[in-house]
Amino acid sequence: MIDMMEQMVETHEKFRGRIIRVKEDVVILPNGKEARREIVEHPGGVGILVLDGQNRAALVKQYRYAFTRCLREIPAGKMEPGEEPEVTARRELREEVGVEAAQWASLGRMIPSPGCYGEMLHLYLARGLTPVGQQLDEDEFLQLEWVPFEILKQACLEGTVIDGKTVTAVLRAAGLLDL
Amino acid sequence: MIDMMEQMVETHEKFRGRIIRVKEDVVILPNGKEARREIVEHPGGVGILVLDGQNRAALVKQYRYAFTRCLREIPAGKMEPGEEPEVTARRELREEVGVEAAQWASLGRMIPSPGCYGEMLHLYLARGLTPVGQQLDEDEFLQLEWVPFEILKQACLEGTVIDGKTVTAVLRAAGLLDL
Repeated sequence: MIDMMEQMVETHEKFRGRIIRVKEDVVILPNGKEARREIVEHPGGVGILVLDGQNRAALVKQYRYAFTRCLREIPAGKMEPGEEPEVTARRELREEVGVEAAQWASLGRMIPSPGCYGEMLHLYLARGLTPVGQQLDEDEFLQLEWVPFEILKQACLEGTVIDGKTVTAVLRAAGLLDL
Repeated sequence: MIDMMEQMVETHEKFRGRIIRVKEDVVILPNGKEARREIVEHPGGVGILVLDGQNRAALVKQYRYAFTRCLREIPAGKMEPGEEPEVTARRELREEVGVEAAQWASLGRMIPSPGCYGEMLHLYLARGLTPVGQQLDEDEFLQLEWVPFEILKQACLEGTVIDGKTVTAVLRAAGLLDL
């Protein structure tokens, strides 16, 4: 196998925000030449496919400023520093959906965009729900919908649902669990 | 329906690279309060599920610096300014795989990470291949593999393949086309 590793020789921080950190690094390629890499560091996050007793999935509709439109997505959130993804998932489920789940299963990991964006997502299936009341931040505007899983699966296949973590979690669950 | 739109009141460019542009904007929320948004602008791109006559898919293995590891992904690439995604897809297919395809079908769009990352991907299925010879840049280090579709599908389900565009394209194709 060819060694394809790139060795960092310089790193330059370009932006440090509350969520992301942007750097431009210089690397040595396998052929000895230099190249620049634009990298967005991200703390990572979780996405949760939540199913109720009637096999309906929780979707949150929210405005996504980067796309100037609303998107429908499974509940999700960023990890706090040092937080285990399972802890993030339980917190986001309480806050965004207002439920706790007795049954958790992993739906694997997903890297949304490996070229420049350093985000890694942990995906879960949550069932066995108990209502505890939604706990949104006052600056969070979400609309919660419960959608029959079969309809959501079809929307993910046909591309009317286009959020990557949602498509990945739903189609993995459909294929692995025969939902 | 609640109006969830966020109105931009200030925009500040924080970094302009060759691929991405980072800005920090101030927006007005639906409740009239101000919030900051960290946004990474990206030109958008394509991902192509390429299948040969034996139903094997082309995968490119490449080093992804943001994750300090190699990933296996379907062929993909960024749109040049003003370029139609179909044109990008044909170009990337020639360059990375060294084939042209007679049959093209859309596998829909996918937004990798809607929170901060403004990338939109267009996904395709390409079949009916004719070899034309791989045309990699001298600074591009890719290993091309041909993997039976059924094995790739299983890897996407189980999470041994974790690239979002690859999972989305493969599982959409599996569900829509009964591959």
